[in-house]
Amino acid sequence: MSKLTGIAAAPGYAIGPVFIMSEEKLVTERKSLTVYEAQGEVSRFTDRVEEAIVQLRELKEQTRLKIGEEQAEIFETHILVLHDEEFVGRIKELIQEQLINAEAALQDVTDELVMIFESMDDPYLKERAADFRDVSKRVLGLLLGAKQKSISDFDQPVVLIAGDLTPSDTAQLDRDRVAGFATNIGGRTSHSAIMARSMEIPAVVGLKDVTSQLSDQDFVILDGFTGTLIVNPSEEQIAEYQEKKQKYEVHKEQMKKYLHAPSVTSDGHKVEIVSNIGNPGDALGANRNGAEGIGLFRTEFLYMGRADFPTEEEQFKAYKEVAETFKEGSPIVIRTLDIGGDKELDYLDLPNEMNPFLGYRAIRLCLDQKEMFKTQLRAILRASAYGNVKMMYPMIATVQELRAANAILAEVKQDLDARQIPYNSAMEVGIMIEIPAAVLISDQLAKEVDFFSIGTNDLVQYTMAADRMNEKVSHLTQPMNPSILRLIKMTIDNAHKEGKWAGMCGEMAGSLIAIPILLGLGLDEFSMSAGSVLPARMLMSNLKIEDAKKIANEALNMQSAADIEAHVIKSLPAVAEMI
Amino acid sequence: MSKLTGIAAAPGYAIGPVFIMSEEKLVTERKSLTVYEAQGEVSRFTDRVEEAIVQLRELKEQTRLKIGEEQAEIFETHILVLHDEEFVGRIKELIQEQLINAEAALQDVTDELVMIFESMDDPYLKERAADFRDVSKRVLGLLLGAKQKSISDFDQPVVLIAGDLTPSDTAQLDRDRVAGFATNIGGRTSHSAIMARSMEIPAVVGLKDVTSQLSDQDFVILDGFTGTLIVNPSEEQIAEYQEKKQKYEVHKEQMKKYLHAPSVTSDGHKVEIVSNIGNPGDALGANRNGAEGIGLFRTEFLYMGRADFPTEEEQFKAYKEVAETFKEGSPIVIRTLDIGGDKELDYLDLPNEMNPFLGYRAIRLCLDQKEMFKTQLRAILRASAYGNVKMMYPMIATVQELRAANAILAEVKQDLDARQIPYNSAMEVGIMIEIPAAVLISDQLAKEVDFFSIGTNDLVQYTMAADRMNEKVSHLTQPMNPSILRLIKMTIDNAHKEGKWAGMCGEMAGSLIAIPILLGLGLDEFSMSAGSVLPARMLMSNLKIEDAKKIANEALNMQSAADIEAHVIKSLPAVAEMI
Repeated sequence: MSKLTGIAAAPGYAIGPVFIMSEEKLVTERKSLTVYEAQGEVSRFTDRVEEAIVQLRELKEQTRLKIGEEQAEIFETHILVLHDEEFVGRIKELIQEQLINAEAALQDVTDELVMIFESMDDPYLKERAADFRDVSKRVLGLLLGAKQKSISDFDQPVVLIAGDLTPSDTAQLDRDRVAGFATNIGGRTSHSAIMARSMEIPAVVGLKDVTSQLSDQDFVILDGFTGTLIVNPSEEQIAEYQEKKQKYEVHKEQMKKYLHAPSVTSDGHKVEIVSNIGNPGDALGANRNGAEGIGLFRTEFLYMGRADFPTEEEQFKAYKEVAETFKEGSPIVIRTLDIGGDKELDYLDLPNEMNPFLGYRAIRLCLDQKEMFKTQLRAILRASAYGNVKMMYPMIATVQELRAANAILAEVKQDLDARQIPYNSAMEVGIMIEIPAAVLISDQLAKEVDFFSIGTNDLVQYTMAADRMNEKVSHLTQPMNPSILRLIKMTIDNAHKEGKWAGMCGEMAGSLIAIPILLGLGLDEFSMSAGSVLPARMLMSNLKIEDAKKIANEALNMQSAADIEAHVIKSLPAVAEMI
Repeated sequence: MSKLTGIAAAPGYAIGPVFIMSEEKLVTERKSLTVYEAQGEVSRFTDRVEEAIVQLRELKEQTRLKIGEEQAEIFETHILVLHDEEFVGRIKELIQEQLINAEAALQDVTDELVMIFESMDDPYLKERAADFRDVSKRVLGLLLGAKQKSISDFDQPVVLIAGDLTPSDTAQLDRDRVAGFATNIGGRTSHSAIMARSMEIPAVVGLKDVTSQLSDQDFVILDGFTGTLIVNPSEEQIAEYQEKKQKYEVHKEQMKKYLHAPSVTSDGHKVEIVSNIGNPGDALGANRNGAEGIGLFRTEFLYMGRADFPTEEEQFKAYKEVAETFKEGSPIVIRTLDIGGDKELDYLDLPNEMNPFLGYRAIRLCLDQKEMFKTQLRAILRASAYGNVKMMYPMIATVQELRAANAILAEVKQDLDARQIPYNSAMEVGIMIEIPAAVLISDQLAKEVDFFSIGTNDLVQYTMAADRMNEKVSHLTQPMNPSILRLIKMTIDNAHKEGKWAGMCGEMAGSLIAIPILLGLGLDEFSMSAGSVLPARMLMSNLKIEDAKKIANEALNMQSAADIEAHVIKSLPAVAEMI
């Protein structure tokens, strides 16, 4: 027996024989062409792109029928890549300018794009690299005349082991035959991980060299919660995990009861559970997972990985799409652009910074880039005519910044009025509370906003002065530290004093240990990843608000995050049961 | 008339004809030697080093007599450089290993050291590069047989214009003949700037190419407050500045009254004004400028620009030296090592960090580097037997970190007890309050420390989430922002509730606009740069504590730093007069 540890990508347990998916390497030969040959090469490339689009449409349709709308969207993304002149056009250019074969040009452009996306700090955008790789592999296969290898050639439920699974591979997995999968590379937010969660296939990714460590003779237990593989387990271990697996399946069934239930404690204290999303496609998943709306719609995806600013129309369409995914009246909180610092745009010349997390980003940049900002505000306002859209500014540190942003918003409203373009003139405008200064003056800020949304990821980082991406100080990333709880309390209290609501869109909002404290402190809205919605709602239904208040008050005077967590677990059996 | 703007290096006004000090370039020729010749070259080099030491001793003695103890120390530093095997030894090695002439080896080693020091983020260490350049120039002159050019060859008070002034040049300036000086390069903390302030010669540095913009026919007004040069001013301007100059001289005389006075408001509220220093030599300047002790002794200088950790003995000597500079009982607050992040050590392998200001540094690193930390604690404890030494830990964010540091301190005390080495067992132990989290739990921390020292530079940076070195967000570096004032109030109140004292060692403590507010909030100790001590004390003597309290309370509820500053100036004529 040995144990391998990777990154937990999709929950659940899989127990079965190993099936290694051998990597079929598509080797590209680099050839020089004459000017005349290059023209022919461009046509050859264009034909294969057309074929790939046909394949993808077919795959999309099958996936929609077999798996679901949301998963099918991945193939739509791939089709869009193949319609993108930035991608296809540049490959054609390269063939003609450098007089090289299509395979080489495709490889070069893909490598470049993959590198750009992988160097980004945003995990969502980082994983966009996989889209390009996947599409590129498909077209390359067609160029080389290689047959796409099907992975549904085995006849019993196996644990699939692969270097990487492209989104297409994942979508083609047969849930009856694949009990789970594990890969060398990938992260929690990679497309294959997201697909695995949607398809409810337990998965572990980022295992580094699992393909070379295992062979087809091995048998494994895959634990999608802890991100571990137990190789050739004992009989006892198999029995233990079979029991766990069954319990989990019962639990999953129970959870489904909460899909359309309100988010309410057992003694009737009602809150709102909504979801964080990074692009319009995610809204479907949030809806399917029981979110009552969107508490944080990050809009960076619209701006990144492209040659110029997105148009007002493109943005409007994306915002409206999300609003229309949910039933009428569901809140959709759109955050204005949080770019800069570590997230760069090719078309916006930003300075290199020694400490990007303490740098020129978000509202700081938007207040300077007034035209860019106005375009976004116009698009958001226009979308507000199509749903309960709210808007919030990120990284507000001073009252003056809020006023400056609102002054620009007023200009945009005037402009829309003049042009008689419809929007919700009462659209709620809030701010992220993610900078300690904002908490300290939240009494003043509360008078000038409609709501607060606490961004705990950044708030913890700044309050503890510890970069959340830096593992040398990760022990200080303590959302449950009393200093953070006190800041949260201050924020909520100051919002309530002015009759405003306070939400949270940091990871803390979805943490089962944190939820009782946050309820007790009076948080009104909990925005979390889609997968956390049902567990959170189930937990709440087993809590009493009075207990939560008592524990929150006690926590405020405790001296460490560890003590507070232990106290929550000890005091609340409902939490202890679920974690 | 034209105007040139540089960096204000030493206060005061100088009005007079320009004297350009032409740069005498010492050109080094690079020669290859035989092994045999290299041996002779080493002796030749050693002889010149001996000569340079003799020159420096003479210069030191003359400076001591003509200028003062403190200025003479610069030459002592130079003598130490020439005794430093890291410097001299490496040059000899280079001659023998690379078989090159002494001039070339000297140049190579100097260039390398200058580059290392200049790349450091700490302004003090950055300016250490000047020491190496200065010493190197002297030895090179001797190697080349060049005569050191004297700059005292003119017979009327002039404004001296030079590319750079070495500390030796500066020390040799005749105050009767040089009304002021301006240089192309240098910063506020360069040795020549420090010397200019000690010698009370108005100076502007960092003017970039002032030597080529001016000629000996020009006449200038030098403004050492604003860092400007007015070239060929009008009669009116000359008259205006002559009046300013006279007023300033009267003011300087007034200030001297406060040299030995207590730091007390006109209605008898007494506080302590102490000074921040970066190395033991600075203690003299602090003492001469009326500081009642040291509120922040940064100990990084001991660790940087060397090949290995400093020994306990070296550290003990440095700490004791500072304690003995002041009269008995004067507080000397030593801060334990704040290295890491942007300040690197060659002999300590630290990770590269994306956001070093939010990284692995100070107490975070010391708690891991236990032996290094213990050596420092031992040295500080031993020094506590020789004065009113106190100690504080930087970057404390949690109660647990404080306890871990104190546990190590307890081990060190036991060890000293066992070895019967004397130390002050009641030595006060405090912490820097520079991380927002620490303020939020300052009620808890106050129970376990003897004092707080608020580090506003970092506290403002983290609270506003704005890197203080990044000019794109420098508008957010607002020590007077209400959020910061509220954190300061919280810190002081929580200290006082436990009967502890609260000081401040950030730049804010020396700001004339901030002082009334800080007094009003109850700050007990103000630690500032030496030059700010007398103005601060003079201002306090013209304030009433009741007025300060009223203004501080009003400020806490105002909405911007700008409003608060305007309010202080409007309400307090004593402040308006002095700024």
